[in-house]
Amino acid sequence: MTFSARLQAAILAKKNPVLVGLDPRVGSIPDSLCDSGEADPETIAGAFQRFCEEVIDVVAPLVPAVKPQVAFFEQYGPSGMSALRNIVRYANRQGLLVILDGKRNDIGSTATAYAQGMIGPGESSPWGADAITVSPYLGDDSLSPFVETAQQRGGGVFVLVKTSNPGGAMLQDLIAEGKPVYRYVGDYVQSLAEKTRGAEPDRTRYGSVGAVVGATWPEQLRDLRAAMPNTWFLIPGFGAQGGAAKDVSPAFDADGLGAIVNNSRGILFAYRREPFASRFGLGHWQKAVEAATREMIEQLRAEIKIESPQK
Amino acid sequence: MTFSARLQAAILAKKNPVLVGLDPRVGSIPDSLCDSGEADPETIAGAFQRFCEEVIDVVAPLVPAVKPQVAFFEQYGPSGMSALRNIVRYANRQGLLVILDGKRNDIGSTATAYAQGMIGPGESSPWGADAITVSPYLGDDSLSPFVETAQQRGGGVFVLVKTSNPGGAMLQDLIAEGKPVYRYVGDYVQSLAEKTRGAEPDRTRYGSVGAVVGATWPEQLRDLRAAMPNTWFLIPGFGAQGGAAKDVSPAFDADGLGAIVNNSRGILFAYRREPFASRFGLGHWQKAVEAATREMIEQLRAEIKIESPQK
Repeated sequence: MTFSARLQAAILAKKNPVLVGLDPRVGSIPDSLCDSGEADPETIAGAFQRFCEEVIDVVAPLVPAVKPQVAFFEQYGPSGMSALRNIVRYANRQGLLVILDGKRNDIGSTATAYAQGMIGPGESSPWGADAITVSPYLGDDSLSPFVETAQQRGGGVFVLVKTSNPGGAMLQDLIAEGKPVYRYVGDYVQSLAEKTRGAEPDRTRYGSVGAVVGATWPEQLRDLRAAMPNTWFLIPGFGAQGGAAKDVSPAFDADGLGAIVNNSRGILFAYRREPFASRFGLGHWQKAVEAATREMIEQLRAEIKIESPQK
Repeated sequence: MTFSARLQAAILAKKNPVLVGLDPRVGSIPDSLCDSGEADPETIAGAFQRFCEEVIDVVAPLVPAVKPQVAFFEQYGPSGMSALRNIVRYANRQGLLVILDGKRNDIGSTATAYAQGMIGPGESSPWGADAITVSPYLGDDSLSPFVETAQQRGGGVFVLVKTSNPGGAMLQDLIAEGKPVYRYVGDYVQSLAEKTRGAEPDRTRYGSVGAVVGATWPEQLRDLRAAMPNTWFLIPGFGAQGGAAKDVSPAFDADGLGAIVNNSRGILFAYRREPFASRFGLGHWQKAVEAATREMIEQLRAEIKIESPQK
């Protein structure tokens, strides 16, 4: 079964497109897990693992997928990376799809090495992800090794197209022959998406190559949705970065499919902000995670209606 | 001391700008280190570590720096990454500068997490590199966290500008208002390079932010050298990818400084090709590494003359 078919099934099963970002940070995770004062990398990595697994326990019945951010684990050296591997496997066992956010990029056999390391659920790859994020600056022949490995293993790839940070404009919005650079990337990604829709009976409207598109630009989101009819969008920037449910609604088709919406800090660290802080207190941070997840699900359900697509 | 000053001192001491790429591969490293038939990730990671350390033993007296390719270690999971960490420390102890080639990229605190994990020699960061490579698609605010961390720790950053693969043209050569996209990146990198030249008495012509520029385009190399007078170039593509000493010579200034030239397979696996295979036999692969390194050094010395720069 293709990654796209698995993603669609997971969204239909949970009736929402929420992607919970696993971005643990010292100083933000509960003190009960990690006294940030004098922790060494091994201790921090262990605390990150416990924290993420306890988040997964809460969100696994609610959402289709999680997105661990590789940087926060790599920051703590080999023990951080071991924790990441364990978290990916734990999420898989709890029935969640896992999109590893590493924004990897390279060419030829080097790109293949990244892809083979990360893409492939369960024991089929060392890191065990269902899909990964990749960066496109090196061009088409840098993306194909990722796409090939993903195809072989029923995995997916999300390519950065239009990012939510202000500086993203520096390159992405340059206009070449009347078309912004990010649209060149988007058109190429759409061609890959069209080719990776899979075969019947599991063929889906969308392919297993998707695009990362920021939620801070609703108009561009609408244009890109029209220009990329077979491309899953991974939308960061919900909640903490300012995007709201109605901002992301242009990314969805009439069946409420076509995008997954990421929220990291707004869910993970909900226990630190109102109204959750007063409602649950610091000691019940998992209840805050659950309430914030349910709140985001309801906000999205008010804008989009998820239904099994007509073939 | 800035990274740029340390790099310049290392080049002057060794009187060559050779950067040995550490790209171990199963099936290419000597059979005596790894029987590729049935090796598990731990065994392969151990073999990679021994191989790279034995390469380092040979090249440490000859060249200024090495460049481990992160992908080939990440491919083997946590044990691969542990081997990488050990190799970086080993190279540091042998007096080599280490440029980790990971092409990382992200924004804000996520970019800072990558930078803090990787940049910082010795025990000042978990991975211990003197410098790393980064990818610029996310724009200026994605580069600044890497630059800031590098500045704080006396480290360096090499930003992808013009890459050596054919597909690099897809984005990099798009023309916006008469200027190719890679020149926008190059101009921004030059501005960072100018700002990171350090203070007297260690101030150098070049800054601690450099550029990755492929050797397959000598004319572009000449133009970029002129446009980026304070930017160290990291030039891949020598040897196996087709670049020759005279192709890279436009990257150097009158003092023979301004660039480092990478060769990975051409040195690491010299024992598998003529004339080295006949001369040394499979059993003396380290002698082939040494001979291939000395050959590349001589080829570059025929084109450039390295001298202490006039202030």
